Amino acid sequence: MAKRPLNIALIGYSFMGKAHSNAWRQVARFFDTPYEPVLKVICGRNEDKVRAARDKYGWDEYATNYEDVINRSDIDVVDVTTANNSHALIAGAAARCGKTVLCEKPLATNLADARDMLATAEAAGITHAICHNYRYAPAVSMAKRLIDQGRIGHIYHFRGVYLQDWILDPSFPVVWRLDKDVAGSGSHGDLAAHLIDVARWLVGEIGEVSGMLDTFVKQRPRLAEIDDRLGGKASDEMADVTVDDSSIFMARFANGAVGTFEASRFCAGRKNHQRWEINGSKGSLVFNLERMNELEVYFDADPPETRGFRLVQTTDGCHPFTGDYWPIAHIIGYEHTFTNLLKELLDSLAAGKPASPNWVDGVRNQAVLEAVEKSSASRAWEKPEA
Amino acid sequence: MAKRPLNIALIGYSFMGKAHSNAWRQVARFFDTPYEPVLKVICGRNEDKVRAARDKYGWDEYATNYEDVINRSDIDVVDVTTANNSHALIAGAAARCGKTVLCEKPLATNLADARDMLATAEAAGITHAICHNYRYAPAVSMAKRLIDQGRIGHIYHFRGVYLQDWILDPSFPVVWRLDKDVAGSGSHGDLAAHLIDVARWLVGEIGEVSGMLDTFVKQRPRLAEIDDRLGGKASDEMADVTVDDSSIFMARFANGAVGTFEASRFCAGRKNHQRWEINGSKGSLVFNLERMNELEVYFDADPPETRGFRLVQTTDGCHPFTGDYWPIAHIIGYEHTFTNLLKELLDSLAAGKPASPNWVDGVRNQAVLEAVEKSSASRAWEKPEA
Amino acid sequence: MAKRPLNIALIGYSFMGKAHSNAWRQVARFFDTPYEPVLKVICGRNEDKVRAARDKYGWDEYATNYEDVINRSDIDVVDVTTANNSHALIAGAAARCGKTVLCEKPLATNLADARDMLATAEAAGITHAICHNYRYAPAVSMAKRLIDQGRIGHIYHFRGVYLQDWILDPSFPVVWRLDKDVAGSGSHGDLAAHLIDVARWLVGEIGEVSGMLDTFVKQRPRLAEIDDRLGGKASDEMADVTVDDSSIFMARFANGAVGTFEASRFCAGRKNHQRWEINGSKGSLVFNLERMNELEVYFDADPPETRGFRLVQTTDGCHPFTGDYWPIAHIIGYEHTFTNLLKELLDSLAAGKPASPNWVDGVRNQAVLEAVEKSSASRAWEKPEA
Amino acid sequence: MAKRPLNIALIGYSFMGKAHSNAWRQVARFFDTPYEPVLKVICGRNEDKVRAARDKYGWDEYATNYEDVINRSDIDVVDVTTANNSHALIAGAAARCGKTVLCEKPLATNLADARDMLATAEAAGITHAICHNYRYAPAVSMAKRLIDQGRIGHIYHFRGVYLQDWILDPSFPVVWRLDKDVAGSGSHGDLAAHLIDVARWLVGEIGEVSGMLDTFVKQRPRLAEIDDRLGGKASDEMADVTVDDSSIFMARFANGAVGTFEASRFCAGRKNHQRWEINGSKGSLVFNLERMNELEVYFDADPPETRGFRLVQTTDGCHPFTGDYWPIAHIIGYEHTFTNLLKELLDSLAAGKPASPNWVDGVRNQAVLEAVEKSSASRAWEKPEA
Repeated sequence: MAKRPLNIALIGYSFMGKAHSNAWRQVARFFDTPYEPVLKVICGRNEDKVRAARDKYGWDEYATNYEDVINRSDIDVVDVTTANNSHALIAGAAARCGKTVLCEKPLATNLADARDMLATAEAAGITHAICHNYRYAPAVSMAKRLIDQGRIGHIYHFRGVYLQDWILDPSFPVVWRLDKDVAGSGSHGDLAAHLIDVARWLVGEIGEVSGMLDTFVKQRPRLAEIDDRLGGKASDEMADVTVDDSSIFMARFANGAVGTFEASRFCAGRKNHQRWEINGSKGSLVFNLERMNELEVYFDADPPETRGFRLVQTTDGCHPFTGDYWPIAHIIGYEHTFTNLLKELLDSLAAGKPASPNWVDGVRNQAVLEAVEKSSASRAWEKPEA
Repeated sequence: MAKRPLNIALIGYSFMGKAHSNAWRQVARFFDTPYEPVLKVICGRNEDKVRAARDKYGWDEYATNYEDVINRSDIDVVDVTTANNSHALIAGAAARCGKTVLCEKPLATNLADARDMLATAEAAGITHAICHNYRYAPAVSMAKRLIDQGRIGHIYHFRGVYLQDWILDPSFPVVWRLDKDVAGSGSHGDLAAHLIDVARWLVGEIGEVSGMLDTFVKQRPRLAEIDDRLGGKASDEMADVTVDDSSIFMARFANGAVGTFEASRFCAGRKNHQRWEINGSKGSLVFNLERMNELEVYFDADPPETRGFRLVQTTDGCHPFTGDYWPIAHIIGYEHTFTNLLKELLDSLAAGKPASPNWVDGVRNQAVLEAVEKSSASRAWEKPEA
Repeated sequence: MAKRPLNIALIGYSFMGKAHSNAWRQVARFFDTPYEPVLKVICGRNEDKVRAARDKYGWDEYATNYEDVINRSDIDVVDVTTANNSHALIAGAAARCGKTVLCEKPLATNLADARDMLATAEAAGITHAICHNYRYAPAVSMAKRLIDQGRIGHIYHFRGVYLQDWILDPSFPVVWRLDKDVAGSGSHGDLAAHLIDVARWLVGEIGEVSGMLDTFVKQRPRLAEIDDRLGGKASDEMADVTVDDSSIFMARFANGAVGTFEASRFCAGRKNHQRWEINGSKGSLVFNLERMNELEVYFDADPPETRGFRLVQTTDGCHPFTGDYWPIAHIIGYEHTFTNLLKELLDSLAAGKPASPNWVDGVRNQAVLEAVEKSSASRAWEKPEA
Repeated sequence: MAKRPLNIALIGYSFMGKAHSNAWRQVARFFDTPYEPVLKVICGRNEDKVRAARDKYGWDEYATNYEDVINRSDIDVVDVTTANNSHALIAGAAARCGKTVLCEKPLATNLADARDMLATAEAAGITHAICHNYRYAPAVSMAKRLIDQGRIGHIYHFRGVYLQDWILDPSFPVVWRLDKDVAGSGSHGDLAAHLIDVARWLVGEIGEVSGMLDTFVKQRPRLAEIDDRLGGKASDEMADVTVDDSSIFMARFANGAVGTFEASRFCAGRKNHQRWEINGSKGSLVFNLERMNELEVYFDADPPETRGFRLVQTTDGCHPFTGDYWPIAHIIGYEHTFTNLLKELLDSLAAGKPASPNWVDGVRNQAVLEAVEKSSASRAWEKPEA
């Protein structure tokens, strides 16, 4: 029986645009999805680039005006992957058009905007989703399953770092990710936000935080020419770096667990080092994004003679998602965290259930981010606004 | 400017059929290929299954008779992923039709057939390729680059294992991979063949071998019902296992290096453990397929105080292939070893050059496999037939 | 030429007493020390136990009254390894007797006592040392060397954890380490103190801290019977746990680096997991006590193609201390962090120089510990008292 | 109650002399041994060096004539650590004197001598032991325990390598270990012999072998001046290397298991890399000497969702030997493989039982070594002489 087609419009064609294009193209090729996504239209402001992206990523059409796109009656889903500071505008507008809206994280560049978006989405009665894709790395979903089964017991500790080094060189220019007006924040919203989502999903809501945001290199060359990936060409002129280079905070979860969070782009040798560890009364879990097909699991109840962290290759048929890819230990890549998220989204749509994660998660994530920023300024503990 | 379309016919829809479908679908989505592959027709004997595969993997048409397919004038490339014992027949026939032919490894189930195929291909003047995909894992290609640059020096040792455990349970049935008539051999042709290809590519031709093939579980339940992946349902009746469970051999390379090779499906806990190490006069290299985005590199010339194996994440823009995927340490998966091989194949086609690896590699690989089999029987050293 | 004998008195015979006994016995067996330590007398309150310790650990005599011992004219060095709350009393008295005094960490259970001890020692003009032994793990000393050579550049981040799990079971009794009166604090003074020492040595003085101390299990069975190692038998009665189970803090170093510190005894599967990482403008360093013979080193200036963390086996002749043990990668054990510290102490004595680390380090360490305790109570940033 | 003293004479003061001295000095400091070893006399031909060794390693006396020493009535145990080609002479003579004799491996430089030694020892009725110390690394003894308990099931595979790189530089001179007259063989007897002992102990007797010995660098500078450790100064003159640089062989065990063995001194970056893996019908074990306090254990019966190699820190109280050292994960070093072997020897002596390993093991090990040498020459499979 033919699947129901689902027409997708993608706003943004850069790094995340590429990743989302791939996931929309691939999701029904691996999973028995209830819908067949149709890559209808990709939209961006630069016509040459968006046309090239259409050709490269396999979209039917391209467009340069997002408003036209979100108003099209043949579009079912609007997927927003533009720069952070336009999420609220575009995703909000798409919500008002009654579309299903998937928004890249962060939901917005500040909590007030995020709340407005959620209110808009709820008023419009749409299905809203946010792309916290790492939840659906198989090892992370497996961690969730073990925690939900009580295998780790009561959680005492969450300990997460997300470390990169791509701006270590002080002559690297002020790309948009280093500009507060566009990005909202630096490592904080870009990297720590991922840790917060994983922590909220696996441990629970965060009750209070004490944090410190630091900018190690306060001035850099102004950007001369943009590059579609992470980099760009430097000009001779200097400009202020207006975002944090490093975000560190302690947290107390509502359930009593304690947590440490650290995100930085100044960690030489750490390329995409999202690593977290959870310690509970019955065991522990360790995940490292750079080896995302593995989960380390420790059960305290194992006999002491043969007790140790188990290196589980979470790519067996029994593990979340992976039975639909390749045989065990034929690893999947980064891109399939997006594919898996879309699989979940399509299942939610078919079931008429809210997506997970959704804009409520986006708002709460933003609330934690903002509490940390506040704490960094107040030098005191702060509670995320409820 | 529009790319030239290249019409593909895929014969076989099982595990390798899925992997090749994906690679054909994806190659131009990541790379600037000279051609745009068109997934024209997928072919298999079981109509229900091949129709489902067409829908699932995104082919335009399906067919049940390979002869019709290879004779179609609108087909440019025939890709053969059927069971081993039909490679010679189908790929040979496709060659005679003048198609570009990509054949899954092993080229054939014996050396004589492999040679016939090569002769046919050469007579037909076609471009022939074999799918030794692991060459094009970025880390493996990076190893090749370092060796070619002389960074490892004169090679003394190659040491490779390819270990799995999926038939450890003696009640696992005799699937086609355990049937000599269909598979040709067991771990030997399935797993050791990959090690041989990597060793030939990185170290050089193998001059002589001494080996031992063993079947640990000599009888198993007959297969009751096939499964498209690796498994199947067992019947009550027993059947002989006619292939090796374990293949071990020592080798002397033409250039004086010595090698050890071990392939087995009886290594509990080893899921897809292809691991090899090369030691040369100036340094060493280590690769592990289960962490295929990493290469361990040691340079003897580093100062002793800070000398050690470097864990290189071979996903930076400067590493082979990976600049076309994601930013560094956003890892790629197993499937892209196929994508990269197709990228190379398309480049060869455009340049009018022989593909690499091709059927000459297939023949030489088969010659090594056969020399080991001969050695296991003769209990003496044997030279692969030139 | 015969070495000058150096007569040692050891106060305490438990875990640390065993480790110090071993180090005194062994130091001149590996190193060309200026003195030959003589294991003169071991002292403890329980006569049966101290007699057994004398026999087991190779001391000439035993004694049960420390005052007698420290007043003996034939004693050159007094080494104090008693419970934390008697350090100030015994080590202070030994200082007043004019002995060279080595004191186990922590110097005292509070900052005021630690300062008094230092004042006493300085007034007496003695050589004072504190047993922060991990400085002298070869890999840690190698890290110090690289930092001092400028190989890591300006330091941005220190990130240290010291995790254990030996009190995870809530029925584990209140041993002395869980009693504030005896131990001073829990994980904080026991484990975080080690991280603080390493951080101070490698990065520099800590300017301010914000921390949180938590006690997860607030009541446990009272201790029925002591055990000389870490454990003990539980009684039926419950008692309050008066120390922290977990110590977490953020720090800002005087030189602008930022740091995270976490110590806990509630991390299932972490047995003696002291791990720290330092990220600087030119490279990074990683140490893990459980693999204490290895140091991971990253140099940002390495060519991107072959750049990665180097796993350095710091047991070559060129590495600190290790040339005096065994050939490379014939690893040394935990016990030799003490042996190496004594080697350094004996060299200092011979050279007439202050020991390192010494009671100044003890005081500063205590000041950081106390600032964290204060911060945990005040919920604000606090500066260690100068 | 006072322990019975046991007077030890050590012949040889070089690398192994240092290691054995340390173990004799330490064994009763950690274990409750039935005897108190007395370091009576150390013996060597070079008076200056042996006197220095006495002082450094803590022996009561020194001597330069081994015959005098082994005839002394006050000597209970003779421990032979001289160059390989004098083992037969000295250990044999000591046996004839009725002493308990511990001999470093290899027992002799050829099988005939080894057999003569065993015959002599049996005729004399002495307790004979051989120093295959790695059996008593806690992780290796733990592996033995698991195998004996049937936890790994029927063994299919043994896979061992012992790789070093200290003669990679062709200008390294011909030290005694590269001289067949003194050493017997190269990597083969030095390194492969250790793998053979472990394999025999854990898997069982070896039924037949097929091997290849290679010398990559056939001439090197003659040795100008000896060095007590592994090195030496090169002269201007060249000399032949008369031993193997690399030893590779396949084995079939009597119980049907298959094995691969590889030892080499030409593996850049491998410093003391003794690593082996055992795969059985129920699980697998992995050991790496460079991380000798860890054992990797895999149980096939674990649930697939959480199945993986467990990294067991074999330093808990429940693990062999380690309860007598330090708390868990406070690692022990290489030297204590010797200490543990002496502990076992002392227990055997007290119980009046044969030592393990003993000269029977030495003979069988030599038989395997010799069968491999024969196979390397005959290019055929060879059976170790019974």
